[in-house]
Amino acid sequence: MEEIKDKSLQTYLDELASKQPTPGGGSAAALMGAQAAALVSMVCNLTLGKPKYAEVEADMQALLAESEALRETLTGMIKADVDVFNKLMACYGLPKATDEEKAQRSAQIQWVLREATEVPLECAKACAKAIALSRIAAEKGNLGVISDAGVAVMSAYAGLKSAALNVEINAASLKDRAFADVKLAELNTIMQTADHEAEAIYQIVKGKL
Amino acid sequence: MEEIKDKSLQTYLDELASKQPTPGGGSAAALMGAQAAALVSMVCNLTLGKPKYAEVEADMQALLAESEALRETLTGMIKADVDVFNKLMACYGLPKATDEEKAQRSAQIQWVLREATEVPLECAKACAKAIALSRIAAEKGNLGVISDAGVAVMSAYAGLKSAALNVEINAASLKDRAFADVKLAELNTIMQTADHEAEAIYQIVKGKL
Repeated sequence: MEEIKDKSLQTYLDELASKQPTPGGGSAAALMGAQAAALVSMVCNLTLGKPKYAEVEADMQALLAESEALRETLTGMIKADVDVFNKLMACYGLPKATDEEKAQRSAQIQWVLREATEVPLECAKACAKAIALSRIAAEKGNLGVISDAGVAVMSAYAGLKSAALNVEINAASLKDRAFADVKLAELNTIMQTADHEAEAIYQIVKGKL
Repeated sequence: MEEIKDKSLQTYLDELASKQPTPGGGSAAALMGAQAAALVSMVCNLTLGKPKYAEVEADMQALLAESEALRETLTGMIKADVDVFNKLMACYGLPKATDEEKAQRSAQIQWVLREATEVPLECAKACAKAIALSRIAAEKGNLGVISDAGVAVMSAYAGLKSAALNVEINAASLKDRAFADVKLAELNTIMQTADHEAEAIYQIVKGKL
């Protein structure tokens, strides 16, 4: 089957809107993160080589390397969300006629739920990284395209808040509360500063328009 | 040339990241809005026909009609941003050898700048509408996919804040300050309640996880 990233925007939106279970919000979160990384790269690419911005040439080179690596990671996460969802659905479809089958099915579900908690948590971490890269683009990028740094931070922030919801849902279904609590604590650490940081970067951009 | 919506997600992201001027943040804003509308439709499609949600069947039908119309509008805006950018670039390329040419060129630029202010303003309005539709999905949608209503509101909010930056940049270059002030006042009206409303809807979803 064709991977989502190879489908057209129109097909992606049509499938997102439909009653088919995937792609869903988890893929949308990863796409927003990837889009944020792409916009940071755009700001870098339109700053590099300009005599007026010679002073930040090295910073922009380093930023571009980071944003392009992050874009690849986040683009891969569009599919990762679908894969773990399908795995989870396969577990729910396991036989449950006998007590042994029931126990095995439940254990399998719990095992995949760990992965279904970690996949959006990794997406949240990558989106938080995209917010941090947006700050550098907003602070040092070409003023002619500075609004794109503002779009980058909002896109990354929306991806982060979206991924967070998916971590919370799946963590809530985990019986291994110690594991769940570790993951929720990691998420909480990321979220604590995100609202304030995203707004601060957005205001840096607004101040330069 | 192939329209952006018919390109793959991978190609869209590659072109966004590149040094080519379009697509840029304006198209990204419209895509986030369209994605939000699609997620509202998904919540509707996965609520409709479920006996447990029979009570909200009519509400969900009405919501789906609105979200699908809005999705079409916002998908069209992905291209509208590119079109107006290209028009503006064509104006900047007009001859300016004589005083008459200079005056004509400047008048043309100012004329297209009006459109370049209105296009993102329309996108901002459509994203604000997507936020409003997300509230209904969050309040009445199937609890099994309620997180998608949360992703919808964040996607719409990021689209709105992104479009707002493009309104402000282009309005700043307008010499017709009366026109600019009217458009900025319209934007301000939309933005005033957006932060609070998006966060309120997000919290409704969180409370239902």
